Amino acid sequence: MSLDGFVAGPNQSPDAPLGEGGEQLHEWIFGLAAWREPHGRDGGETGPVNDLVVESLDAYGTEIMGRGKFGGGPGPWPQDPPWNGWWGDDPPFGHPVFVLTHHEREPLTLGSTTFNFVTDGIEAALERAKAAAGDRDVLIGGGADVIQQYLAAGHVDEFMVHVAPILLGGGTRLFDDAGRAARTLERTRVLDAPDATHIGYRVTA
Amino acid sequence: MSLDGFVAGPNQSPDAPLGEGGEQLHEWIFGLAAWREPHGRDGGETGPVNDLVVESLDAYGTEIMGRGKFGGGPGPWPQDPPWNGWWGDDPPFGHPVFVLTHHEREPLTLGSTTFNFVTDGIEAALERAKAAAGDRDVLIGGGADVIQQYLAAGHVDEFMVHVAPILLGGGTRLFDDAGRAARTLERTRVLDAPDATHIGYRVTA
Repeated sequence: MSLDGFVAGPNQSPDAPLGEGGEQLHEWIFGLAAWREPHGRDGGETGPVNDLVVESLDAYGTEIMGRGKFGGGPGPWPQDPPWNGWWGDDPPFGHPVFVLTHHEREPLTLGSTTFNFVTDGIEAALERAKAAAGDRDVLIGGGADVIQQYLAAGHVDEFMVHVAPILLGGGTRLFDDAGRAARTLERTRVLDAPDATHIGYRVTA
Repeated sequence: MSLDGFVAGPNQSPDAPLGEGGEQLHEWIFGLAAWREPHGRDGGETGPVNDLVVESLDAYGTEIMGRGKFGGGPGPWPQDPPWNGWWGDDPPFGHPVFVLTHHEREPLTLGSTTFNFVTDGIEAALERAKAAAGDRDVLIGGGADVIQQYLAAGHVDEFMVHVAPILLGGGTRLFDDAGRAARTLERTRVLDAPDATHIGYRVTA
């Protein structure tokens, strides 16, 4: 997120899906070997931040995401042609993904990723994701509203924020203030780099 | 600030001037020798975080604050008895303070601090503060709205945030999103401790 708390900049559009300035939030990850490999690219930086990403990716057995992260607007699923998200033919997840949606749809397998569409709410999605993850963790992958819903419901045990050195001045907040419950956190680690400060937290109360 | 960006919790009142849960934002500083000494108390922690605070306090020659930080509500100044702020007979500042207000008032000296009341805007206050600071820095001391005004006007060169491990869920944001300009920052340093993560920034664009 930006220092002022945004995970997307103002004026999101098809041409600027992360909003104005929003791509700067992710610059820290694009050069990493751990990001490049699942996106089909060679090389990249190694080191402590790369290790952190590798460790995180290894920890997750599955991911829950909102329909916005899967890709596309709201409403019934387009049929002709079908809309298969904006992750391409070989999405970089490599584990089962559970997509929260109000519109039923059969599971969709692309490359090594199967997207499962869940229409009966966040608790049902979590139950299915836990079963699919085995003894690994479930990642609440976003967007912000999905993260807020799981946080408010008390289902987030640990998380990491990557604070980019920028003020976006507007956009979508990771933590909004629409009546969310207060939470006490324990800071588990900090990893500092010029393009982002990575802070891990455990939710303690 | 809290991880979700608040410098005061929800429901501020005379009994809870920092709002619900807001005092937890400042817990990292209360034990430090550098905080205890100007507040007339002996002892306290030394170490890197204390050094950071000592260094900051040494750097400032003066401070600009809003009327809310000086203390008391809006409107004309109470005369009988006069309202001298909530910092007591010997405020911990020890340098000239410039208080932004819409209501004229003669300077007020309490202990080693003189409060000057500025009614002609943030630019005038900055000019007077720079003159008073000599070759030292001017601290924009808050509250959040005062910081936002100086940041939006391009007058903030460097700043430090102290991120407490808590989500307050509501309150007063350090960085609101009411049309403030985007800013590019350079992270100057990070100092990590369990009760706060201290991150310094320089405003670069």
